[in-house]
Amino acid sequence: VIAVVCLNPAIDVTFQVDRLRPGASHRVRHTIQRAGGKGINVARVLHQLGVPVVLTGLVGGRRGEAITAELSAVGVTPQLIEVAAETRRTVTVVDGPAGATVFNEPGPPIGTVEWSHFVAAFESVAAAADAVVLTGSLPPGVPPDAYAQLTGRAHACGVPVLLDAEGIPLRSALPARPDLVKPNEHEAAPFATGYATALDGLLEAGARNAIVSLGADGLLAAVDDRRYRVRLDEDVAGNPTGAGDALAAVLARGMIGTPEWELTLREAVAVAGAAVAVPHAGEYDADTADRLRPLVRVQEV
Amino acid sequence: VIAVVCLNPAIDVTFQVDRLRPGASHRVRHTIQRAGGKGINVARVLHQLGVPVVLTGLVGGRRGEAITAELSAVGVTPQLIEVAAETRRTVTVVDGPAGATVFNEPGPPIGTVEWSHFVAAFESVAAAADAVVLTGSLPPGVPPDAYAQLTGRAHACGVPVLLDAEGIPLRSALPARPDLVKPNEHEAAPFATGYATALDGLLEAGARNAIVSLGADGLLAAVDDRRYRVRLDEDVAGNPTGAGDALAAVLARGMIGTPEWELTLREAVAVAGAAVAVPHAGEYDADTADRLRPLVRVQEV
Repeated sequence: VIAVVCLNPAIDVTFQVDRLRPGASHRVRHTIQRAGGKGINVARVLHQLGVPVVLTGLVGGRRGEAITAELSAVGVTPQLIEVAAETRRTVTVVDGPAGATVFNEPGPPIGTVEWSHFVAAFESVAAAADAVVLTGSLPPGVPPDAYAQLTGRAHACGVPVLLDAEGIPLRSALPARPDLVKPNEHEAAPFATGYATALDGLLEAGARNAIVSLGADGLLAAVDDRRYRVRLDEDVAGNPTGAGDALAAVLARGMIGTPEWELTLREAVAVAGAAVAVPHAGEYDADTADRLRPLVRVQEV
Repeated sequence: VIAVVCLNPAIDVTFQVDRLRPGASHRVRHTIQRAGGKGINVARVLHQLGVPVVLTGLVGGRRGEAITAELSAVGVTPQLIEVAAETRRTVTVVDGPAGATVFNEPGPPIGTVEWSHFVAAFESVAAAADAVVLTGSLPPGVPPDAYAQLTGRAHACGVPVLLDAEGIPLRSALPARPDLVKPNEHEAAPFATGYATALDGLLEAGARNAIVSLGADGLLAAVDDRRYRVRLDEDVAGNPTGAGDALAAVLARGMIGTPEWELTLREAVAVAGAAVAVPHAGEYDADTADRLRPLVRVQEV
């Protein structure tokens, strides 16, 4: 079983309107509402891959209840800690001309006692897992080194950690030696210094293995002392939101037991591409993945 | 006790952002969330006026539960019927340059059995009331002549009805002879034909008494065979949303027992003006009402 941590989940609401005009009143033609947040997307893809998955994290209020109910319904086991403040919400207004206009609420404030409660609960979840995924932003009140703390607890149980974060939560967790980090180019840029590439910077700062994802251009990997350049010889049309979470899901599955990295990297890029073909995050198109798999080129560099 | 009917309540969400840019991602600085819908605004003002008030209508899902909880907390007795579909939501994005940009979800679909269930429940609520207020839009699935049906049931119990609606729900209810209707100029316009004013048209179509509200210009009234022009000699700065609901609340209170229309019209215009001084709907500023009361001119015409 893979345990996915989602500290700042959300209810993602999408409103379809004819045309967004600031200052006007709009009739919403269609509403979609689903549990969101990177951890939830990763967990959904793991479930679709056939991997038993537990989602842990912090939820509050009626929106937290809705997330718990939705996860159970889609086959992801929720082991969430309830907090006093209500889970955040994102609203995306989709129209023709402007595309997607997004409104992100800040996360609910988390108390120190709530955080301690979560860390204790995380230890039992991690102890029962084959791998742990730490992903996404931190709500206010959670310490900036949260991912360092959780990486340490997972390692104390002998469980490998995939960390997908950015900024201070990523940087402060690297000395705890996460088994794999996978920032995108933009998130990895601060680790490139002088002649050292971002991959070198991430390894020097403590990551045991590192991948830098390049969107439609594939990825660069430094795994088990080898370097790979992975490319997909096909442009997939669709919604790239959540492709990185699909990548993380396949990589996490590949970390269980003895990793076969070339195989894992190929599959990860195929599934991430196949996630672009689905309009919402947290799912990939299995037929597209079958089609893309032979089009992925994995080159040792 | 006054019974207020709100068939299509909403959860009103307000997001404060720095500047709304279509196609961009926005950080929400501040969120306000409250129960909304014209009936809920009328009920809140009645409660503030010191009138015992029961709110009945249709709610569904977690948002319905939130509305019920909020009404109880503010002193309005909820007697709501639960339906299968979830209560709608409105999102208003407030920024500096564009002001307010509103997204209105359609109401939840209501089944015929749910509607029959509501009508039966309405009869007991109406039977125990001194007056009934029917106000706001109808969710899909509720028959267009819903307000005609409810007016008939209230009259069968000997209870007077204030109807605040527009379009077909208003027009189709007039033959049932509601005791007072109060459209605004725009809503009343279809009833003005040839030389007949909108007031005449409303009375001819069946309304026992009619008021046409003119926003900051006051109102015109045809009540008990007399005609009045009511003006407020002062511009009130603020948010006019909900002023019409404050007007309805005072008018409904004035319908209990033997109406004293001149007094009621003066008070209604003062309280409606005082509602403009409060940034959100469903409340008025009592000091402003005290100040405005002597500035209201009631002229028989």
